[in-house]
Amino acid sequence: MSPLALRQAIRSGKHRGTTTGYASGYLQGNLAILPASYADEFLKFCARNPKSCPLIGMSEPGSPFIPELGADLDIRTDVPGYRVFRGTEDFESATDLNAVWRDDLVTFVLGCSFSFEAAITRSGVPLRHMDANRNVPMYVTNIETTPAGRFHGPLVVSMRSFKPSDAIRAILYSDRYRLAHGAPVHIGDPAGIGISDLMKPDFGDEPVVGEGDIPVFWACGVTPQMAIRNVLPDLAITHEPGLMLVTDVLAEAAEFTLHTKTV
Amino acid sequence: MSPLALRQAIRSGKHRGTTTGYASGYLQGNLAILPASYADEFLKFCARNPKSCPLIGMSEPGSPFIPELGADLDIRTDVPGYRVFRGTEDFESATDLNAVWRDDLVTFVLGCSFSFEAAITRSGVPLRHMDANRNVPMYVTNIETTPAGRFHGPLVVSMRSFKPSDAIRAILYSDRYRLAHGAPVHIGDPAGIGISDLMKPDFGDEPVVGEGDIPVFWACGVTPQMAIRNVLPDLAITHEPGLMLVTDVLAEAAEFTLHTKTV
Repeated sequence: MSPLALRQAIRSGKHRGTTTGYASGYLQGNLAILPASYADEFLKFCARNPKSCPLIGMSEPGSPFIPELGADLDIRTDVPGYRVFRGTEDFESATDLNAVWRDDLVTFVLGCSFSFEAAITRSGVPLRHMDANRNVPMYVTNIETTPAGRFHGPLVVSMRSFKPSDAIRAILYSDRYRLAHGAPVHIGDPAGIGISDLMKPDFGDEPVVGEGDIPVFWACGVTPQMAIRNVLPDLAITHEPGLMLVTDVLAEAAEFTLHTKTV
Repeated sequence: MSPLALRQAIRSGKHRGTTTGYASGYLQGNLAILPASYADEFLKFCARNPKSCPLIGMSEPGSPFIPELGADLDIRTDVPGYRVFRGTEDFESATDLNAVWRDDLVTFVLGCSFSFEAAITRSGVPLRHMDANRNVPMYVTNIETTPAGRFHGPLVVSMRSFKPSDAIRAILYSDRYRLAHGAPVHIGDPAGIGISDLMKPDFGDEPVVGEGDIPVFWACGVTPQMAIRNVLPDLAITHEPGLMLVTDVLAEAAEFTLHTKTV
C-alpha cells in the first residue's frame, strides 16, 4: 500500500492500530503537537538534542498540513491514534483531532528508529526484540538533555543487543540514518549511563540478550515526550506508541531530500 | 617534508628510523616482497582477506617501481629498514635491497593503521598507547584467515581501548578508511576471539586500559606477515615495524584515488 492510500485508510477509519510494517520503505515519524507559545522553545530543544529529537518536518502555526512530508497529509486525521494531554500527565486517547484542533497548534514530526532497524535487518543482522515479537526496551539514563526554555529532561535510550561483530555493523548502518537517531550513544556496561538493571527497562518489554551479546544504546523518541511532560502545556498531543505518521518520503532518501528543507 | 623529499632522504641515508609522524597527511604502507612464483597466491590471499591485507599497490615482476604510489619511488632504497627472510623464520636487517634484488620479485604494498589513527586523534578521541608513548598491542586470535594457495594463518588484531562513546566514534571514523583496515572486527570481551589475557599481547606493548574502557579490535598488518612465515619462500622481504613506505597519495583521498587502480 502506498503512503497516501494508507493515510486515506487511516483517515476513513479502515486502518486502525500500528503502522509498523505498512507502506514499507517510506519514512515514518513521531508526533509532537504544541501551542505556538511553546513552539520556539521546543524547536530549540530539538535543535540542541538532534540525536534524540531529529526533526523531519514542522507545520506553520494552526496549519494541519506539512506538504514536504505528504501532498495530501492532514495531521488531524492521518495518524491512527493520538494522546491528548491537557496540562496534566493523564491523557485522553483519540482517533482524530477534529474536535481538539486549535488555530495556534504547531506540529513537529520527529524521526523514529524504523529506518535504521530496517537497514540492520536487511543486512542480515538479527534484532532480538523483533525475533521475540516484543517491544524494544527503553531506559531513562543519567544523561541530561541540553535544555531549551522550559523543555528539559533525561535522555531516554532504546537498547538492542548483538554479538560483537554484529554490534559493529549495527553501529555503522545506523550512523547513516541521522534522522532516525543515527549512531548509538553508548555500548557495553549499562551502569555507565545510569541503568541499574538491564532486564528491567522503564518502557517497552524485557530484553532478550544472547550469550556473549553486547548491549548497544540509541537515543530514543521518548526523550522529547518526557521533556514535554516536564512542561505540561495546557494542550499537547503525541501519537500512540507504534501508531506513527506515515510520510511520502522514501526512507533511504530522507537524509538527502529532507535535510535542506526542514532542519 | 614532502613524501618525495622524505624518500630521497631515506635513499641517501640521511633519514633512518621510523616514518611515523613524517610526511603527515600522506599514505604509508606495509611492505611484502615475494618471488613471482608466490605472487598470484599472495594476491589471492589479500583479495580474500581485505580487512587484514588491504592492497594499495603492486609492482610488475622484477620492477622496483610502483608509479601509482610515487613518481620517483624505488622500493629497493626508499624504506628506512627491511627484513630479509631466506626460507627460515630468521631474518637479516638491511637498509637497502640493492644486493638482494632479483628479477622475479613482486612488491605488495598494504595499507596500515596510520590513516584511521590520525582521523581518530584529529577528532579529539585519545589513543591510549600514543599518549603513553607505547606501541599498539597486537594479539593472535582464534579466527582463521581465508587461505589462498600456500598462504594461511590466524587473524592478528591490534587493540585500542576507549570510553564507550569514544569507541562508537572510533568505529565510525575507522570505517571510512577501508585501505587502513576499516572498521573493527571485534569489541568487548577479548575471550570472544580467543585472547586469554588482554594485558599480555603477542606483539607490541602492554596496553593502557582506562576505567570503564571498552576494548576495540582491528585487523592488523601482522596477519599477512604470519601467513608469509607459514610458507617460508626462499626469499621474502618485509619492512621493519614502524619503518614504512611513504607514498605520494594523500591519505584522505586514498580510498577514491587508489581503489579503481589497484584493487
